Amino acid sequence: MRIEAIAIGTELLTTDRVDTNSVWLGQELASLGLAFSRKTAVGDDRGAMKALFREALDRSDLILCTGGLGPTFDDFTKELWAEVLGVALKEHAGAKANLLAFFESRGRTPSPSNFKQALVPEGAEVLANPIGTAPGIWWESPSGFPGRRVVLMPGVPQEMKRMWTEQVVPRLAPLAERPLKTLRMLVSGVPESVVDERTKGLRDKHAHLDWTILASLMQVELIVRSPDAAALEAARSDLTAVLGEDLALCGEGNLESAVLDLLTKKGETLALAESMTGGLITARLTAIPGASRALKGGVVVYTAEAKAVLAGLDTELLKAHGTVSEATTCALAEGVRAKLAATWGLAVTGNAGPGEDPAGPAPVGTTFIALAGPKGTVCQHPIQAGSRADMQLRAVMHGLDLLRRAALIR
Amino acid sequence: MRIEAIAIGTELLTTDRVDTNSVWLGQELASLGLAFSRKTAVGDDRGAMKALFREALDRSDLILCTGGLGPTFDDFTKELWAEVLGVALKEHAGAKANLLAFFESRGRTPSPSNFKQALVPEGAEVLANPIGTAPGIWWESPSGFPGRRVVLMPGVPQEMKRMWTEQVVPRLAPLAERPLKTLRMLVSGVPESVVDERTKGLRDKHAHLDWTILASLMQVELIVRSPDAAALEAARSDLTAVLGEDLALCGEGNLESAVLDLLTKKGETLALAESMTGGLITARLTAIPGASRALKGGVVVYTAEAKAVLAGLDTELLKAHGTVSEATTCALAEGVRAKLAATWGLAVTGNAGPGEDPAGPAPVGTTFIALAGPKGTVCQHPIQAGSRADMQLRAVMHGLDLLRRAALIR
Repeated sequence: MRIEAIAIGTELLTTDRVDTNSVWLGQELASLGLAFSRKTAVGDDRGAMKALFREALDRSDLILCTGGLGPTFDDFTKELWAEVLGVALKEHAGAKANLLAFFESRGRTPSPSNFKQALVPEGAEVLANPIGTAPGIWWESPSGFPGRRVVLMPGVPQEMKRMWTEQVVPRLAPLAERPLKTLRMLVSGVPESVVDERTKGLRDKHAHLDWTILASLMQVELIVRSPDAAALEAARSDLTAVLGEDLALCGEGNLESAVLDLLTKKGETLALAESMTGGLITARLTAIPGASRALKGGVVVYTAEAKAVLAGLDTELLKAHGTVSEATTCALAEGVRAKLAATWGLAVTGNAGPGEDPAGPAPVGTTFIALAGPKGTVCQHPIQAGSRADMQLRAVMHGLDLLRRAALIR
Repeated sequence: MRIEAIAIGTELLTTDRVDTNSVWLGQELASLGLAFSRKTAVGDDRGAMKALFREALDRSDLILCTGGLGPTFDDFTKELWAEVLGVALKEHAGAKANLLAFFESRGRTPSPSNFKQALVPEGAEVLANPIGTAPGIWWESPSGFPGRRVVLMPGVPQEMKRMWTEQVVPRLAPLAERPLKTLRMLVSGVPESVVDERTKGLRDKHAHLDWTILASLMQVELIVRSPDAAALEAARSDLTAVLGEDLALCGEGNLESAVLDLLTKKGETLALAESMTGGLITARLTAIPGASRALKGGVVVYTAEAKAVLAGLDTELLKAHGTVSEATTCALAEGVRAKLAATWGLAVTGNAGPGEDPAGPAPVGTTFIALAGPKGTVCQHPIQAGSRADMQLRAVMHGLDLLRRAALIR
């Protein structure tokens, strides 16, 4: 079954608005063993919309279209689908009754433009919208297109999601393929090309599975899909052996949750002293529910004064070695670990720029990451490039991976 | 000029990965007076990609294609464009030299799969990638398609953005329409509908300008576009008068940069004690270059112990009032302000969930935000709903806006 998403709205082409609807629908389809073959966003432009609707009818079995069902002058999705399929729009008694009930329940009066929302193309079914004024449409085998299904849903995410779950899924479920199961493995601290090379043999061995490799800063995701659970389990076992300590987790989650799970499981705790990363490591860890089980707290020490007051740094040591140095970073990690009586103390110093400052503590890109633990303190010193945000984020990931590996082997 | 975006990657169809590249490119085009007529995402599927490339060549003058230029098995964008246009891929000496230099500068050795990134279709120009291994492609009037332009860029956002700014924009600028100028005003702490009502008269008065209102958590952006700089200036002056203290900034930036600019200008400083927001306020502030001029530091105090050690909280007061309370939050703000000798101390406590815990400190959604300053301490107590991430982010914005308004009138 070929499925495509169409999102309608000029704001999707020209502003920072993201079409989150089709992202959500893509994940919903995956859980039914289905997948989009493409997604298109188009503006509120009659010609462009009709051309796209015609193409979609030619190439896809199921079309999931969101947006353009509102009451205003720039909403004409239903009207254009009716034109493309050569049928008339008629007022639908049930849709009109729902519309009136909606306004009554809120003590409001519909404006004249709202009534166009009760128009429905002939031959289509109405999908009720319990929390908004735009009904949806389910159109099975429209005239001239046997076997095709066209689904129109509102662009407002919460209305679309409720309509999808309550009314579209029950109609789609009988059509779903044998559901795909997904194996997800997160690798950290190794470049994508290395993961690619190391898993090449396994991709050949398990060539009947569907493989995807996704890289982001300091992390690589391996996603393997198949309807065959036993085949996925065999791949999981092979991958686990090949990836070894580079494997951060198997299943849902990210590097932050992997670190917190590991520490919680071992009954260990963490304290942070962040300078270059400015609280980002702590913020990413506390974004995970239950972070407090392993995270004792953190300090953001931008100034020399803060380093002394909050992490107990010896000002003589700071003067001798400078803010961005191995000695200072190690002392910060040890200081915050002692202050909060944690198993681990993690500290990051550096210069993320932008712009070189001759009076600055170190050249842009310099980074020190120190981890103090029960067996002593280690410090790593990666050289970085890129934007300020990139360097900060890479230092976050580097620090978390250093901690993950140390906690793993302890 | 008809322009379309093509984003490549199965992850865009089946996972929670959002194609942020084409959203960013849409805004960049707007600043050149240009706009996408459609955007399509397609998976790493040779048949689907080739069909889409052929369609795009038929209907669009300029095709901006991102993704699929990496070194791994599922990267074949260049190869398929070469097939569709009937030309060969050849190793490009400059691209290969850049690739080798990239690896050398990082002390790494390229894997064999990296070398395919130095292949370039005949007749195309290379767009150098100074921060990654995937060069881009600029292809003007490919054989059989006079006047068409095909641009291939990496999917990694920071690589794409730099390539766009440094190499694509200079090539595109001569083709752009009369450039639109943009006026951007950021309003914080007021709902979108209120901003809408209050600016309605000005939208009627300046009806020849192009107006957009965009809301996000606790912030509203007003974007006004026109090729006429004097008309924009008149609108700016009218809006400034109408918005008053609700206007956080005019131009580029966010609430964080507005707060830092204001403090820096006044020679004031800030210290933070975060519990519910877990370092997020500090991290968002330190993401801004030069944050250290106003930000003295912050503490993330998840445990009672951390609250006492890092923010000097009296443990008797904590026992009497509980972690999530006005008294504790005020004491944290005052404590961190005193510890770091800052003009302002900002503290946030609360329960962002998820899931009610009968033994928890307060019902999910409870939030206290306290600001200690030269004239004393104020505390606000918004009740929140939504996801953990939403509640944390709304508390961040609420706290920053509280500080912004206090610093403004001091």
